Order: sequence, then C-alpha cells, then structure tokens
Amino acid sequence: MDSDFGIPRELSPLQQLRSQYQPELPPCLQGTTVRVELGDGTTVAEATDSHIMARAFPHTLGQPLAHFLRETAKVSDAHIITELPSVRVGIVFCGRQAPGGHNVIWGLYEALKVHNANSTLLGFLGGSEGLFAQKTLEITDDVLQTYKNQGGYDLLGRTKDQIRTTEQVNAALKACTDLKLDGLVIIGGVISNTDAAHLAEFFAEAKCSTKVVGVPVTTNGDLKNQFVEANVGFDTICKVNSQLISNACTDALSAEKYYYFIRLMGRKHSHVALECTLQSHPNMVILGEEVAASKLTIFDISKQICDAVQARAGQDKNHGVILIPEGIIESIPEVYALLKEIHGHLRQGVAADKISTQLSPWSSALFEFLPPFIKKQLLLHPESDDSAQLSQIETEKLLAYLVETEMNKRLKEGTYKGKKFNAICHFFGYQARGSLPSKFDCDYAYAMMTVKHWSQNASSTSTSIGRPAIHPAMVDLKGKAYDLLRQNAQKFLMEDLYRNPGPLQYDGPGADAKAVSLCVEDQDYMGRIKKLQEYLDQVRTIVKPGCSQDVLKAALSVMASVTDVLTTISSSSTVGGQQFA
Amino acid sequence: MDSDFGIPRELSPLQQLRSQYQPELPPCLQGTTVRVELGDGTTVAEATDSHIMARAFPHTLGQPLAHFLRETAKVSDAHIITELPSVRVGIVFCGRQAPGGHNVIWGLYEALKVHNANSTLLGFLGGSEGLFAQKTLEITDDVLQTYKNQGGYDLLGRTKDQIRTTEQVNAALKACTDLKLDGLVIIGGVISNTDAAHLAEFFAEAKCSTKVVGVPVTTNGDLKNQFVEANVGFDTICKVNSQLISNACTDALSAEKYYYFIRLMGRKHSHVALECTLQSHPNMVILGEEVAASKLTIFDISKQICDAVQARAGQDKNHGVILIPEGIIESIPEVYALLKEIHGHLRQGVAADKISTQLSPWSSALFEFLPPFIKKQLLLHPESDDSAQLSQIETEKLLAYLVETEMNKRLKEGTYKGKKFNAICHFFGYQARGSLPSKFDCDYAYAMMTVKHWSQNASSTSTSIGRPAIHPAMVDLKGKAYDLLRQNAQKFLMEDLYRNPGPLQYDGPGADAKAVSLCVEDQDYMGRIKKLQEYLDQVRTIVKPGCSQDVLKAALSVMASVTDVLTTISSSSTVGGQQFA
Repeated sequence: MDSDFGIPRELSPLQQLRSQYQPELPPCLQGTTVRVELGDGTTVAEATDSHIMARAFPHTLGQPLAHFLRETAKVSDAHIITELPSVRVGIVFCGRQAPGGHNVIWGLYEALKVHNANSTLLGFLGGSEGLFAQKTLEITDDVLQTYKNQGGYDLLGRTKDQIRTTEQVNAALKACTDLKLDGLVIIGGVISNTDAAHLAEFFAEAKCSTKVVGVPVTTNGDLKNQFVEANVGFDTICKVNSQLISNACTDALSAEKYYYFIRLMGRKHSHVALECTLQSHPNMVILGEEVAASKLTIFDISKQICDAVQARAGQDKNHGVILIPEGIIESIPEVYALLKEIHGHLRQGVAADKISTQLSPWSSALFEFLPPFIKKQLLLHPESDDSAQLSQIETEKLLAYLVETEMNKRLKEGTYKGKKFNAICHFFGYQARGSLPSKFDCDYAYAMMTVKHWSQNASSTSTSIGRPAIHPAMVDLKGKAYDLLRQNAQKFLMEDLYRNPGPLQYDGPGADAKAVSLCVEDQDYMGRIKKLQEYLDQVRTIVKPGCSQDVLKAALSVMASVTDVLTTISSSSTVGGQQFA
Repeated sequence: MDSDFGIPRELSPLQQLRSQYQPELPPCLQGTTVRVELGDGTTVAEATDSHIMARAFPHTLGQPLAHFLRETAKVSDAHIITELPSVRVGIVFCGRQAPGGHNVIWGLYEALKVHNANSTLLGFLGGSEGLFAQKTLEITDDVLQTYKNQGGYDLLGRTKDQIRTTEQVNAALKACTDLKLDGLVIIGGVISNTDAAHLAEFFAEAKCSTKVVGVPVTTNGDLKNQFVEANVGFDTICKVNSQLISNACTDALSAEKYYYFIRLMGRKHSHVALECTLQSHPNMVILGEEVAASKLTIFDISKQICDAVQARAGQDKNHGVILIPEGIIESIPEVYALLKEIHGHLRQGVAADKISTQLSPWSSALFEFLPPFIKKQLLLHPESDDSAQLSQIETEKLLAYLVETEMNKRLKEGTYKGKKFNAICHFFGYQARGSLPSKFDCDYAYAMMTVKHWSQNASSTSTSIGRPAIHPAMVDLKGKAYDLLRQNAQKFLMEDLYRNPGPLQYDGPGADAKAVSLCVEDQDYMGRIKKLQEYLDQVRTIVKPGCSQDVLKAALSVMASVTDVLTTISSSSTVGGQQFA
C-alpha cells in the first residue's frame, strides 16, 4: 500500500517551474538565530468553560504565547537562541488532503536543517495508521524534489483521521518513544487538531518528552481564531472553485436559459461559499449560518430561490448561478432533527431500509415527502465527527427539484409568467482538493512550522458532553466579510455583476491575490492586544505610590466602571457565541 | 432579454491583462494586401456521395480552394488585392458557447476595418432568433473593449441552434436583404455549419448576394477534416478539464480509497476524452469509438473496469481515475437500440411513463434492469440532432453502480480479495465552457475569419435519408493520437503515471502548449497535396510530345497500375468510413 509513497513523480512543465519556487519567509523566521518573546498565558474563548478546560488540560492549558521577533525588533526580555540541539521530529498527514500540505513538510525540513544539520525529520507513511505501525520515511532533499509546491498528500499519504481511542493514543505514545522523537507534527483540520491537543496533554501526563504540534491545514477554512487567521489550502480551494463558478456564470449569461445550482465542499460551515461569492459574484448564495440564525425551513429556502427566479424573470433574465454550501443541509432545523433521528437508529444497528418506519411522526412526514435519491443519501452512516456524509448528500439537486416543482406550479397558476425553469446541478469539491497550491498557500504552509502548541491553548472550547473539542469556526454574521456580501447581495442577485478571477495564476495579475474575506477582516488582533497592554502600563505608571489623592480617586472610579462594562460584555458575548453551537 | 448584450463588463485583474493581449496573426493574414491563390476545386469525402452532393449543392459545390499567401511567397498566378470595397457583414453565434467565440468577432472586425475603414460589422443579438428578428448591434472598438480574449458568448448571446425550416431560412434571407449584408458569418459547430452550408446554397439559388461563411467553433473538437485541423474552444476545454482530472488523480493518490468516474462533455465522439487522457494520464478511458468498433455491451465495459480494479488491488492500489465520454452511452449497441425505440415512441407522442410497456422484449429487459435514475434520463426527449440528451444522462453513475455491484459480488464469492470498492462520480462540462480562452484559442479564433466557404465544400458527406449534413468527425482508431494512447494504456492503468498540467496559464511553461492530439497528427495535408501535384507536373513535363516511345510506354504502364490501386483504395476506404456512420 505504501510502496508508491515518496517516489519521484513525473512533473509537467508548469509543475517543474513550481518545484523551483522558493517560498517567502516572514522576517521573524529568517536566518539561523531564533528570537522569542514569551507573552501572557492565554485564556479560553468562553469564560464559562474555564473549569472544564482546566480539568481536561491540566498540563498544557495556559502556556504563554510565543512571539517570534525579527532581527531588528527591540524587545528587552526576548530569548535569543543561537544554537539549537539536533532534534528528531515525526510528521503525519491526518484527515482530508489540502493544497500546501507538502510545503509544511518541506518548510519544517528546511527549518530543522538550518538550525542543526544533524536534526532528523521522519514522515509517517499512510497517515495515522503509519504512525501506529511506525512506518517511516526519512525526509531528505532528494525525497522532497518532486513534491515542493505540489498539491496532494501523496508524498506520505493518509488513511484514517483519528488518534483518539486508548489503543490509538497508546500506539502513538509507543511510536514516539520507540523512535525517540522530540516532536510530533500533526497536519490536519479541526478534528485532527483536537486529537493533537488531547495527545499533547496525554503525553505530558505520561511524562513523554515528545512535544505535539498541530498545524491547521484544511480546505474548509473553519479552523481559525484570534491567533490563526487562515488555514493552509483554503486560498487555493477558493481560487479553483471561483474559477469554475465564474465559468458557470459566463455560461449562464451566454445561454440565458439555465440556473446553475452549485454545491461547494466545506463541511459544516460556509466559509468556502462566502469567499467564492466575494470572488466571483454569483447571483445568490445561501449560507448555513444564515439558515440556522433565521431558522429557515427547506421550504423557506426553496421559496426564497423561487422568488428570486421570478423577480429576475420580470427583468427578462432566465438564467442564474446559486451557490449551496454542502453543510447547509445540517443547518435546516427540521432536516437536522431528521438526520439526528436517522443517525440514532443507525447507531443502534437498525438497518437503513427499516428506519423509515421508526421515525417520529414529524420526521416521518418530512422523510416521506423527499424524493428517493435524497432519502437514500440521508440514510448513510454519519462521519467520525457525527456529522452527516455531507459530500454525498445532493442538496443542490433537492433544492433544484423543489424550485422546479414550485415554478411549474406558479406557471400553471399564472402567478409566474416567465420561461420554463431549467436547472443544472454541480458539486465542486474533489476536483479542487488535489490542485497545485496557490503562491499564498505555498508560502503560508512553508512558514507554518514554528507556530507551536497553539492548538491546545487557544481555540479549544468545550462541548456539553464528552471531551472538549475545537469547534469549527462559523461564518461571523457580524463580521466584515459577511457585511460585504449583504451590501452587495441585491446587486449580485439582479444585475449579473459576474466577476471571473480566471484560472489560478503564478505570475502576473491575480497571482498574489489574497482571499477577500481575509483582506476585509481585522487582521491585527495581536497588535491591538499589545496596544491595550500599553494603556494599562501607562495607567500603572501614572498611579504609582506617591501620586495625588485626586489622581488615585479618578483612576479608581474610571477603572471600576471599565471593569463593570467589560464584565457585562464578556458574559453576554458568551451567550451570543453559543447561539449556534 | 437582450438588454444586457454588449454592455461593458467589470473585469478582474487577470481578465484586464488578457483584454490587452494582441493575438498573433499568421504571416499570410498580416498587412492590408490580400494575396490569394485559387487551387483545385474540392471533391467530396466519399466518392459514392458525389451525385447526392451535386444535387444538394448545385451552386456551391466544387468551388476552388483559396490559399492565402504571405508577402514573400512566389506564386505566379496569385490574385493580389490591394483595395477592397467597403462591405457590410452580419455575424451570429449559433449553438453551444465555446471559449474564443468573442475573438472571432474581434478578428473579423479588425480585418474588415484594416481593409476598408468604411466597412460595417453587425452582430445579431440572441443568436439565430436575433437574425430572424433583425436585432442588431453595430460592433465597434468600444463595444469590444471588455470582450477581447474573454470567454462566453455574452457579447451577442445565443438562443436556438437552428436555421433550417423554410420559415427560418426565409427570415434569414429577408434579414440579409433588408440589412444589405455582403456577408453573413455563422459561428458554431457541426449542426450550425451544416445549416450554413445549406443556407449558402439557398441564398445562391435565390440570387441573394450575401455570402454565407461558417466558422468552426465548438468545444467537441468533432468538426475537423483535411482543411480544418482544430476547432476554436477545444484547446481551452481540454486544458480546463485536464487540470480538474489531474487534481482528481492527485486526490485519488493521496486518499488511496476512491475510484473517480469522470464523465466529460463532448457530444457523440470522444475527442475531448482522448485529448484529456493524453494530457493528464488517468488510469483508464473508454472511448465511444472503441465501444462501437468492438460492439461492447454495457456489461463488457463494466467487466473491463472490474478487471482493472481487481488487477490494481492485486498491487495494493485501491484508487483510480476513469474517464467516460458522455457520448459513450450511444455507442453501446443495446443501449443505442433502446434509445432509438424510446425516441420513436416519444416522437409519436407516447407519454414518457407509458413507454416502458411498449418496448420490444429485448429493450424492455434491458430497461427494467437499469436503476431508476438512468431510466428517467433515458426517457428524456432527444436533441434537435436526434441524439439523446447526453449531458443529462449520468453514464458515469450507471457504470459506477454496475462496477460496485459486481465488485461486491466478487468480494462475497472470494474471487476479489481487495478493499471495498468506493466510487465518486463527476461530470465535467458546463464549468469549462465559459472559461477564459487559452492563448491558442485566442490566436486561432482571431485569425479564423478569412477561411471562407469551406463548410459547404469539403466536409459535407451525405446522410442516407434526408438532406446532406456534416458528420461529426470521430476519433480515428488508426490515427496517431489513438496509437499513442494504446501504447501507454497499460502503463497508465497500472503505474499511476498521473501528470498534472496545472491550471491554464498565460505566461511561462504550458502557456503555449498545444493539444497533444493536434501535435501528433499529420499536420500538413495541404503541403502533401502540393507535393503530389509537383510529382504529376514532373511526369507531365517528362512525358511531353516528342518523348521516346520507351518513356511513354513505361509511364502509361506505371500510371495505369497507380490509378488501379488508388481506385481500389478509394472505394474500400469509403466503406470503412461508413462503418460507424
């Protein structure tokens, strides 16, 4: 099975050119000297979870944030490390492949070697299974040759996503001990980074000296927080999909007779769909977060699309492009309830063809109403994270079917006077995951490697039952990216302002383009934390022992109300944040 | 409906750069002087059809071929035209959009203006419907600004494909007369160029002075012959699809658990699938022409795939990528027979849900065996060219279903010992048609405009009933491109020699790549015709009156046998050529 891993690949001319590309490193990671400033210990995202988190992560919670500094930075208490011992590090791909994964390995390899030429990097073959079985390939420059800046995970492969059961974590511990690893790097998404956080705690508890590092590589873009602004792979996926969406827009505008219903891969949340909308301006997108927030039923959504089709027909427009994130199906309340019932029965061992007779009356009514192809897909076993098999459920076909039925009804009743409604359905997912990574992802992945231990500190929030897990970040309906969409939604819907970013380029216009949602969001969270600390320091300096009674009195009064206000805001934002949890 | 045609579009940075690109013209089309050599009158492709063709095209058949010459060419009887009168030309998009269509308009506009600034180019809005209704937009440099080198047909739009009925050809005649057109340019594929040929004859018969010109623009690549080596749009489509196929290959190799069944748009024949295979090296492709030639049943094809899956599993490979041309479904003998029966009933007005009871026993048995989703798709009304709605028939899902069933059976019986077979199905079509055109298509389309009247001379061959039509060219199973595939098929199947040409580039490696099937085929048909004429001229010079009896005797004897041999070959190739007609 692993016979093909790491073998040299035949590269096309473009791939050869890309393999020559040297990613850019940020100034703080250049050179052989490491300059680190250790900041405050981190807090948990939700104040109410702090005791659960403290219990789950007694060894690893609350460690200080490490800031890497550029050579010119003047920080008095920075640790300056010029000589590093040789280390042995293992690296493993977990979970779904994302463009840029290979560059994480290459970047780590170069970083290890530049600091100590005797350091060793071992790749585990075949994902977590290879970790458990201790199947390794030593990474060398020769091995990397035809994988630099290339897509896929085929250098090492991947199999299962999980490092979770007692058997699995023990096998991982044994592998790290047997192989004398100083570090274990896990490349993956939300699930794999949750596993990495727990594994780090488990290793610390077991007094294993291997440090566990999670690297956020996922096309879904849902593994982000104050410290992680983007995931490796998201930029490429959105560019490849936007190209195809734009092509469909141009096609729709040329033929003037089709509505394209395009479902996008991206798991539970709608980051990919939002970003692609901002890049290519299709007529409509329905975000899972909007559906959940407004508790829209499947009929509400279908009616919303029908009304849009009717409004456009009123302007003699009988074509359009509508984006459907794959996760939307779980955001629709009544479908979600149905899925939970089905999954419950499946887990109890009920055969799929017997389930329809055991549903609650409400779910049964919905189920019986659905067309056969969707019934079959809803009956599939859930994934390892308990979500439905989103990539297998053709929500775009279901919506196209409902819209067509309704438009035909309106046509018959005379309330709709436009042309016959025609839908073409597409699912864009697998054809983008293996893409050559964009320049952004090449650079970002290559530089990723020194972000250590972030996973077990920052973004973990508790689940109500079971062990704490990293929640996938949802699209922030109060955020700037969503706001940009809302401002333009009506124009996109009616005016066909289609924008074609074109195929992914490596030179010229667009080659250095960043994700729109990344550019509009507030970037400098850490900068603003620093600014706040400066204010606090200034107050401290002014109100030193010896200051006047008036100054002290004013300071006390002001700070009391500041504390009050912040306490109130903190607890209410916690409630708000749980709204869709 | 036409309110949006020709309005300026907002262009992305890459689109803006592309809009600045000036396509290259071949030397013979550069400058303001036109140099033409009129060659022999053309013959029909099939000797046996000559009387049918002569009857159908009394005015337009057998016209001389026009060769355009570069300035430096020394041809004694070349016509040299330095001044051209101002002309009025109409242009219309017919049939499915293909990347590069806009450049045909731009190239024609520039060519008309360079020869006479007073010439006028009128675009018909909304395809043939716009032609009949005389809805025009005068093409100007302003109008073209945001459409140069851009994809789609949205500058003028298109609606119906047909210019065929008496009413339609009369409306076209009236439009050309009313608008005082010297020329009418029809941009389209096989069907539209057949219509163009008949329209030219109809106009000639009616003594209408408008010359009709067909331009071969089709993504299918099936409108080719000795004079037309490629179609505008084919290069782009194959590059966009090859990128996505390669991404799926990389994905398959990374996950090692899926077989991708990818259906490709391309109508009846398998040119797109063949070219994409040569570009991206998937494990397997099944060409419609192979299926027809070997009379493979649906079960033969399914078994062929199953055996491949089993052989790969024997090497611990549980993944793969298989290409399925959309036209394959009509190449399978028993399915074709079923489709013909269904279409016959549909044409007689039988309701779709009643047809299954009226099928012949053999067709009925096949139909009942098929899964419901395919049944529904086979019952769709045929297209205007009598073929099935190929884009709507999910042949890839049918094959994946049959293969899965068979693999599960083999697994149960113990004859297959590999992992459980998993298929993921895709259809690549609509998402490529609207793409930004490749450099090749930009240049080719821009230069296309002076190929006049080819359509009604060369590639028309008769149909057995009804009017003569251009047959779409099929993949030549004796050609070099197919031979290249056969030589590599076993290696592609077993060794995962996936090749990723990457996203369509406009600069650097790959930007100037031509289609593999174009590069390996004999290119210089006209050059070889010229060479033959030189030989004949030499014989004529040697055997002039006054030559010796011996020379004359030898020449007569040799030429008698040459003529014999060529006559025999000609008639047998005609029979061979009709094999799949």
